[in-house]
Amino acid sequence: MPHTARAEARRAQVLDAALACFREHGFHGASIARICKASGMSPGHIYHYFRNKEEIIAAIVEQDVARILDFHDRMRSSDDLVATMRECVAEGVRDTLDADAAALKLEILAEAARNPRIAELVQAADRRLRTSFIETLRAVGVVRGDDAQMNDCVDTLCAMFDGLMTRGVRNPDLDVAAVTRRYQERVLELLGITA
Amino acid sequence: MPHTARAEARRAQVLDAALACFREHGFHGASIARICKASGMSPGHIYHYFRNKEEIIAAIVEQDVARILDFHDRMRSSDDLVATMRECVAEGVRDTLDADAAALKLEILAEAARNPRIAELVQAADRRLRTSFIETLRAVGVVRGDDAQMNDCVDTLCAMFDGLMTRGVRNPDLDVAAVTRRYQERVLELLGITA
Repeated sequence: MPHTARAEARRAQVLDAALACFREHGFHGASIARICKASGMSPGHIYHYFRNKEEIIAAIVEQDVARILDFHDRMRSSDDLVATMRECVAEGVRDTLDADAAALKLEILAEAARNPRIAELVQAADRRLRTSFIETLRAVGVVRGDDAQMNDCVDTLCAMFDGLMTRGVRNPDLDVAAVTRRYQERVLELLGITA
Repeated sequence: MPHTARAEARRAQVLDAALACFREHGFHGASIARICKASGMSPGHIYHYFRNKEEIIAAIVEQDVARILDFHDRMRSSDDLVATMRECVAEGVRDTLDADAAALKLEILAEAARNPRIAELVQAADRRLRTSFIETLRAVGVVRGDDAQMNDCVDTLCAMFDGLMTRGVRNPDLDVAAVTRRYQERVLELLGITA
């Protein structure tokens, strides 16, 4: 394995161990010592990839941003926008209801609500995603009024998915197929996209 | 002050101190020792009102349930449903975006995602609220299909407000007046209530 690929694999290994610790013990309970034990690495090794727990959170937030930017890329390169939107919404609903991912996002949001540095990370990621989404919508010819109205529209969409994440915790009996259909229709309606 | 009123006031004092500790330190960081220090009470006094931290969480969840059941009461006794819904939505948006309340709810949800006993508390509260909301809608003559469809409708509404709570953390530049108008229109539309 070449040097950089090995470094990437090691970094991913630390990140996975940290994710598991955050989920199980929360941000404050997941000490570097616990992450070492879970990853089988020394503190020196971990600090080589991440200087502190906040850098680990930043990497987790970045993974989530990358996942959503990929949806925007798929919209831009689509030749059937309705079908692509339906696919992206279905995947988005599935990802959003993943219990492990939701636990991690809730942990990060709870920390953001009391730690200004984590809040700034989360807010910067949100700004990037909103900007990219609005640019993508314009690029594919979806225009819903002026900048403020486009922002409202995107905020409404983001609230739908964040709300679904907490619904998954509060109501384990959610009918996923029904939610998916509802979300597909609502997103297309909100964006004014018709077949 | 009569005995029970004094007991109620003491209990409220412990609860307020616990809330502040949970917000600042998280569920795990908020030890009974810290709550004692913040409330100026002895551990014996605190254990007199709450046997453990989970009972404190249950009391917080109960406060939130009471706040929402009050909206249902107001709907039932309203003689202008559109106006009452607009008022309730405006208050709901304001309460949902309250940063301290959001920090606490996120902390409880994050804990629910990893602690089955807290999950059961949160899920039982959600079932009660959904049942009450559906009964209230029927009582005021709002019918949106069969039981499953009523449930979908209520779930969508709950997701809108939970999503707004996390939007407040992710996007501090939210235009609250615009959100309020949007939510008022959307709730009336979703429930098929017209003036």
